[in-house]
Amino acid sequence: MNLPPISALHTDKYQITMMYAHFKNKTHHHRRAFDLYFRSLPFGNGYVVFAGLERAVHYLENLRFTEEDIEYLRSMNEHFEPEFFDLLRSFRFTGNIHAMPEGTIVFPDEPLVRLEGTVIELQLIETALLNFIGYQSLIATKAARIRHIAKDDMLLEFGTRRAQEMDAAVWGARAAYIGGFDATSNTLAGNVFGIPTSGTHSHSWVQDFDSELEAFRAYAAAFPDQAVLLVDTYDTLKSGIPHAIQVGLELKQQGKTLAGIRLDSGDLAYLSKKARKMLDEAGLTETKIVASSDLDEFTILNLKSQGAKIDAWGVGTKLITAYDRPALGAVYKMVSRYENGEWKPTIKISSNPSKVTTPGLKNIYRIVDRKNGKARGDLLTLLEEQVDESKPLVLFHPLQPFRRKKVKHFRAIPLLQPIFKNGERVYELPSLDEIRRYHQQQLSLFWEEHLRILNPEEYHVDLSENLWQTKQQLLHDIYESIKAENGHHD
Amino acid sequence: MNLPPISALHTDKYQITMMYAHFKNKTHHHRRAFDLYFRSLPFGNGYVVFAGLERAVHYLENLRFTEEDIEYLRSMNEHFEPEFFDLLRSFRFTGNIHAMPEGTIVFPDEPLVRLEGTVIELQLIETALLNFIGYQSLIATKAARIRHIAKDDMLLEFGTRRAQEMDAAVWGARAAYIGGFDATSNTLAGNVFGIPTSGTHSHSWVQDFDSELEAFRAYAAAFPDQAVLLVDTYDTLKSGIPHAIQVGLELKQQGKTLAGIRLDSGDLAYLSKKARKMLDEAGLTETKIVASSDLDEFTILNLKSQGAKIDAWGVGTKLITAYDRPALGAVYKMVSRYENGEWKPTIKISSNPSKVTTPGLKNIYRIVDRKNGKARGDLLTLLEEQVDESKPLVLFHPLQPFRRKKVKHFRAIPLLQPIFKNGERVYELPSLDEIRRYHQQQLSLFWEEHLRILNPEEYHVDLSENLWQTKQQLLHDIYESIKAENGHHD
Repeated sequence: MNLPPISALHTDKYQITMMYAHFKNKTHHHRRAFDLYFRSLPFGNGYVVFAGLERAVHYLENLRFTEEDIEYLRSMNEHFEPEFFDLLRSFRFTGNIHAMPEGTIVFPDEPLVRLEGTVIELQLIETALLNFIGYQSLIATKAARIRHIAKDDMLLEFGTRRAQEMDAAVWGARAAYIGGFDATSNTLAGNVFGIPTSGTHSHSWVQDFDSELEAFRAYAAAFPDQAVLLVDTYDTLKSGIPHAIQVGLELKQQGKTLAGIRLDSGDLAYLSKKARKMLDEAGLTETKIVASSDLDEFTILNLKSQGAKIDAWGVGTKLITAYDRPALGAVYKMVSRYENGEWKPTIKISSNPSKVTTPGLKNIYRIVDRKNGKARGDLLTLLEEQVDESKPLVLFHPLQPFRRKKVKHFRAIPLLQPIFKNGERVYELPSLDEIRRYHQQQLSLFWEEHLRILNPEEYHVDLSENLWQTKQQLLHDIYESIKAENGHHD
Repeated sequence: MNLPPISALHTDKYQITMMYAHFKNKTHHHRRAFDLYFRSLPFGNGYVVFAGLERAVHYLENLRFTEEDIEYLRSMNEHFEPEFFDLLRSFRFTGNIHAMPEGTIVFPDEPLVRLEGTVIELQLIETALLNFIGYQSLIATKAARIRHIAKDDMLLEFGTRRAQEMDAAVWGARAAYIGGFDATSNTLAGNVFGIPTSGTHSHSWVQDFDSELEAFRAYAAAFPDQAVLLVDTYDTLKSGIPHAIQVGLELKQQGKTLAGIRLDSGDLAYLSKKARKMLDEAGLTETKIVASSDLDEFTILNLKSQGAKIDAWGVGTKLITAYDRPALGAVYKMVSRYENGEWKPTIKISSNPSKVTTPGLKNIYRIVDRKNGKARGDLLTLLEEQVDESKPLVLFHPLQPFRRKKVKHFRAIPLLQPIFKNGERVYELPSLDEIRRYHQQQLSLFWEEHLRILNPEEYHVDLSENLWQTKQQLLHDIYESIKAENGHHD
């Protein structure tokens, strides 16, 4: 299914005004580099699952200002000169982009996307890129947490009605699938992405008949081998399950199997154990038990620890809204300026050290132990640096440079892949199933202590000595310049 | 700007399978009634601002299955018979809808939308209606809380980059405007809805120049009377504000005014007071101070209580994601079945009394005191009931029927308006500014104790005696029938 192009106006006004101010200042063709990254891990998780790249690629490949867009911008600000609109009319994305493949396990302060291009194109696209990548990465991460706890159980994404509008439902379903869910209830996502869909009937189906038994029979008549009957409309144990069993036995006589029952309220641990026993005693051992009811990784963990007999989990609100941390807080910062034939790193200061940007065009390597195949840490380097796998590598934490460890017998796997070169896509988008498989491979690189959902061990993202020195030098220069100016003012 | 039609596949799979099961059961033409409502108040607020109706109307007016949709559904389930697709091909929404006008102050368990139609059309649309109305009502409510605290200050919606995908940014901007915000940063929302837009420049603008002063000058040259300069790229007090003042004084010499400065980090109370003093001492008394930095109603309340000198507040993540309660949890329940020429109320039971549905086609009245113009409570009645304003009205809480109060000299204002009749829209959609004004009028009906953001007083939503009796009778009948059946089984 083809998706419509995304409006160039899906951006912040300040991107447009900065584009104009660059145009006025004749600096709009200047080349700059930006990094897209996040600063802190959501949900108390140990990692983030990178997602949203395909949506970003689709946006960049089709990015145009229509005449209607231009008409609107003309009405927005009387300062805009007509020549500015000519610039917008011919606007195409012309930059270079490197990014992590979707499904990559990523960490704070790592450039997930590295962009080079004209300053105005990189400003324009900031907002949409953060919006797309921030949301899908957040949901893929939440889904991965739930998958980690559910182990081999079936996981169903049921959140559309509670999602924050339509795009969130559709792209959230995609992200959940990347993070390890098996199916979605959203048929639009099913059509657009080819994700398996799931869902049978609601309480209103039962209310629609004079009796629950009649309702179950009618549903099973339509889908004799696929019916999952919702058993809590009136009373789960006294009405719903007995009626489901009755229909299950009727199906059995026709050589069919009642596919499942769904529990949607009450004590799911108690009810599922009771339900399993009742179904088994009736000979319906193949009938599965599906549960749904405000589930998340913690309730599933708790229910499993209580021995709940649940085969499939339907997760809605808590997943699709990332309920306990509904924004990743991704940022997009200028890291380098191309001036007089060379890239010059630039920095943004903050009184909070973790908010100071890491300057320069950078590469990122995953340092993997050759013996056990496990990741030891990630290393950020300046673009021109090479990592020599034949020599020991000294890693140190950027905020604690005195704590050092030496790594031998490693592979340094570059994580950023070329996506666009001079505005042309040079990356073949993997299928969604390839992304899912790649994500599972990525997980296998990490020890369980980084993957557990509570109090995971911090995974180290280190700066090369050169990069760290570059950052310190820029910090030093800026503080000196502020001091000099204030000395001068006083 | 015309919006594209919304896909009929933006729904849960179980709506499609129930449509098919009704088709198979030859019950697809049966007429049913549903209510859309929510059960609990978000954010600890005393009310919700109803929003999202226009989006729902647009969806219903254009709801069609395309051949591509049908092709997808055909591939989804081998049970579907070809005649079912003919039904989908000719599908149009043909029902009756009553709804609250957008901007109405609403409460838990009130039917925000009352729908009558064929069972299959009402099933199909459930998911999208909950998705649209749930999200916009949530954001409008959050915005109203922030407006309540900000009083007459300027409020700017800056959340696009942190929104849960594109639709959330755009429709969230609309909802924030309904709830009392003055502008959005999202230019697409600006174009689609005519909302004023706001925003000037980011840190990268400053980083793009060899000095902050040069950056400010270049920006002010492009927008001499509109520049809001972001002053925290390097050091707010030692660098940003002094440079902004220098540019402000240069503008003044040209007869222009520096529009504002923006603080985006640090202690906003201290910095804003200091900034105001520095600006005033330099004679830049007209220059406004804008603040942004993870703001919400609580941080704004706190900053105002500390005497912060802030004229305009830019609110991002916490508003657009409804950070502290990212889903309203709206529900959609069958309340009546049309059988043998009459409507028969139906109910869904739950072990949790607050989750038992209120049966029947209902009206809702706001009981307003004629003397002081303030709302006393809302009253749900059966459709056929009349409220006689000439007689005292006895109100009682549905979960505490023994607590009664008698109301005299009141007006009973019906809240539900006809929107669709036999699938035809009979409601003229108000403009967004009309909705904003109506919302403000609605607020004026309520005492401050219901509107305050912390521990508001509960506003009563009562059932008429007839409606309460109907509910009790249905509960009684169902429990009796379960008991009889189990007696029979034993």
